[in-house]
Amino acid sequence: MANKEDQKALTKRSEDQAKWYTEVVQRAGMADYSPVRGCMVIKPYGYAVWEKIVEGLGGMIKEAGIPNAYFPLFIPYSYLLKEAEHVEGFAPEVALVTEAGGKKLEEPLAIRPTSETIMYEMFSKWIKSYRDLPFQVNQWANVVRWEKRTSPFLRTTEFLWQEGHTAHATKEEAETEVMRALDMYEKFVNEWLAMSVIKGKKTEAEKFAGADYTVSIEALMKDGKVLQGGTSHMLGQNFAKPFNVKFVDEEGEEKYVWQTSWGTSTRLIGGLIMQHGDDKGLVLPPVVAPIQVIVIPIFKAENKDEVLDFVKKVEAELKEIGIRYEVDLSDNRPGFKFAEAEMKGIPLRFEVGPKDVKAESVMVVERLTGSKNSLKLSEIGSEAQATLDHLQKEMLKSAEKLIENSTRQVKTYEEFKKLVDEGFIGLIDTFFDGNEENENMIKEETKYKSVNVPFKTMDELGPDLITGREGKRTFFARNY
Amino acid sequence: MANKEDQKALTKRSEDQAKWYTEVVQRAGMADYSPVRGCMVIKPYGYAVWEKIVEGLGGMIKEAGIPNAYFPLFIPYSYLLKEAEHVEGFAPEVALVTEAGGKKLEEPLAIRPTSETIMYEMFSKWIKSYRDLPFQVNQWANVVRWEKRTSPFLRTTEFLWQEGHTAHATKEEAETEVMRALDMYEKFVNEWLAMSVIKGKKTEAEKFAGADYTVSIEALMKDGKVLQGGTSHMLGQNFAKPFNVKFVDEEGEEKYVWQTSWGTSTRLIGGLIMQHGDDKGLVLPPVVAPIQVIVIPIFKAENKDEVLDFVKKVEAELKEIGIRYEVDLSDNRPGFKFAEAEMKGIPLRFEVGPKDVKAESVMVVERLTGSKNSLKLSEIGSEAQATLDHLQKEMLKSAEKLIENSTRQVKTYEEFKKLVDEGFIGLIDTFFDGNEENENMIKEETKYKSVNVPFKTMDELGPDLITGREGKRTFFARNY
Repeated sequence: MANKEDQKALTKRSEDQAKWYTEVVQRAGMADYSPVRGCMVIKPYGYAVWEKIVEGLGGMIKEAGIPNAYFPLFIPYSYLLKEAEHVEGFAPEVALVTEAGGKKLEEPLAIRPTSETIMYEMFSKWIKSYRDLPFQVNQWANVVRWEKRTSPFLRTTEFLWQEGHTAHATKEEAETEVMRALDMYEKFVNEWLAMSVIKGKKTEAEKFAGADYTVSIEALMKDGKVLQGGTSHMLGQNFAKPFNVKFVDEEGEEKYVWQTSWGTSTRLIGGLIMQHGDDKGLVLPPVVAPIQVIVIPIFKAENKDEVLDFVKKVEAELKEIGIRYEVDLSDNRPGFKFAEAEMKGIPLRFEVGPKDVKAESVMVVERLTGSKNSLKLSEIGSEAQATLDHLQKEMLKSAEKLIENSTRQVKTYEEFKKLVDEGFIGLIDTFFDGNEENENMIKEETKYKSVNVPFKTMDELGPDLITGREGKRTFFARNY
Repeated sequence: MANKEDQKALTKRSEDQAKWYTEVVQRAGMADYSPVRGCMVIKPYGYAVWEKIVEGLGGMIKEAGIPNAYFPLFIPYSYLLKEAEHVEGFAPEVALVTEAGGKKLEEPLAIRPTSETIMYEMFSKWIKSYRDLPFQVNQWANVVRWEKRTSPFLRTTEFLWQEGHTAHATKEEAETEVMRALDMYEKFVNEWLAMSVIKGKKTEAEKFAGADYTVSIEALMKDGKVLQGGTSHMLGQNFAKPFNVKFVDEEGEEKYVWQTSWGTSTRLIGGLIMQHGDDKGLVLPPVVAPIQVIVIPIFKAENKDEVLDFVKKVEAELKEIGIRYEVDLSDNRPGFKFAEAEMKGIPLRFEVGPKDVKAESVMVVERLTGSKNSLKLSEIGSEAQATLDHLQKEMLKSAEKLIENSTRQVKTYEEFKKLVDEGFIGLIDTFFDGNEENENMIKEETKYKSVNVPFKTMDELGPDLITGREGKRTFFARNY
């Protein structure tokens, strides 16, 4: 594991987050670059975090009564063409299979960039009556979007995701589902990833291609930029009509269904890294950390046996309470092991040296704060989990503070541009009327895009920063 | 859910297994045909079985200390060309992406038919020293092979699978791993799928394209044909050399690694259906059954409340002991509900009518045997799980008997052909020297292929059925 690369100091996050990110992703063993353009390899440590996401969010989806299923990777190209906005949004970044089994295909097959079209073709076959509604299904799958600029987890040609799709008898039911899914995302990222997010409605310019509207959770990164963490779309009847998804209602009348779709992806891991990481590397929330405690024995030849015997007792305690732990028995020197554990963002480090053995205790170092405390062997059972729970909460709190501290209110576009000119990178909170032309202008001139219209302040109206017409409180930011 | 299609009688398995299979897969809600050639949609009920497979086998893989990771879907076409046998085996059935992001690609990308090449390119980067060995990784992913004839689960253009890949310092270690993986597969299918399999070594003609040799587990279907359930390959240094996967050993000498790969897929679900199913539909082993108990209330208007109140008590008992159950509250008549539960292969049916309520009991019907027994509400806690465990064992036993009863020994090719001419479909057990030309002749003349050389009788030698030269006991069969 130890190679020359790892001996070099990590670029400071506070100095160059982009460079820091690229380094930390690789050195913590989260992902590596593959020989295929824009595609990453998710390494075991990174994949273990993804498995925790699947466990946590997947559990919530199942609890909501939505079963998993699996639809084909391939979508006949003609399907994408059926919904005008949808094809406009996705055609430019689609990958096409044109040859297979040694022959040219009659119709090219798109690799799914998202599965609305292939799924709803099936829905139209399966849904017949109001008794079949609501019809709900979720899929965990890989999707492909041919992105121009890529970065591990944040934006990759292929990524892993979850896409939920539901069909309802009424518009109201569908709208309720759009929000239920978004609330679930917020609960999940709060409780599992200790991430704080801004929940709101996307502007017209930023909604999903084919949706009536899109709502989202948006996460602020430590460098002040924003990452879209999850989206939920009100599809209305935009797909039901071209795909002919109809049902017979209780009165015997044939109607189109109302649909929703919602997704989150491996991008969340990028958000996790950049919302919590620091100059020493990753800081992982205990709930999703593949290793929650790293035990590092420190010994010389003469006291090796007693230290390792004691470590066995520590292990027994950790195993007993179900904590995910590892013992670092490699040949590296302790300082190197500490740095590696910090790079990997392991929430707690247990140092066990001869003095600790004599005191029947371990030295506990918190990754988040760096604080050190001695903990009796007999107390591990009662204290270790409590400490992890505490750290999880502290991480969420500091994520919440990050948003507070990074938000500036402005009334006019002049103030907006002044802030940007001063080098501010963060959330700009202003009134905006949703005008697409103006939004494009803001984007071109400042590189700031609308984040969303936060639900928290949805009812507050005020004069648009440019037109002076009635606008809603809207967040703008640079984004990933 | 109830539609005209379902009212028609299911084709009898005993009369036409192929037709029965196609019907039962759809009517039990396991899978459906998609509009994409050769691709199926795995419906929630079928996907729930796959999730159980991932849980069971995935758990065993993790317990063996092999972590999961994720590699790109795309493989540069030139990579496939690096191992001569590999490209010969896979090139004819590969799907190629030639356009993406609106442009023609400089080099076409193959959709992974298997991941040796893309993975080992990364291995060569990651593996440096003997300290990095053994290097082990597993991937759960979708793969694509452009098959000419397809059937849901059994052979589909896209399927889901697990592929384990390991690299070792010595040939011996790699050979041990090849068998360890196969033993794990056998244990898994025995314990979770209640399937009995023939474990053995593939002949030269049937080994994996690029392997030194392949070992397999093969499952006998009720119609006497055989399905390959899982394979484990000794790759030797066939890939290490072209992909330059080398390590420095303890003496400082640079050496190529020895590699293995092994996989199982959604085909297992096809095997599960055809090894256990009967004229009424699926018969699912309790361990992987998405629904282990279906509770069917039977009532008229005047006793509806008391029956449904009692059902609540039954539910409480089932929940308490952690059994996966559902209550069928649909409007259908009881007979229809019984048939649907049978079609879905739900291990136990609890019928609850007014008489049962009076007796404080439920009528328990076993799917496997059809036997009926009254069970007191107070006994559900102690008896229901025991009954499921018993059924699981009985299913494995009857699968073992199926192999015994379907095997015929022959000494000569004349006897072989006579058996086939008489219409025998099953396992033919004979001595064979592994000659590829003769194997091809047998295949052409009888449609029988070698299954494998079973390890159980590996040491028994005898005169080859055609050449009379020394041969090993080898199974032949028709296969899926």
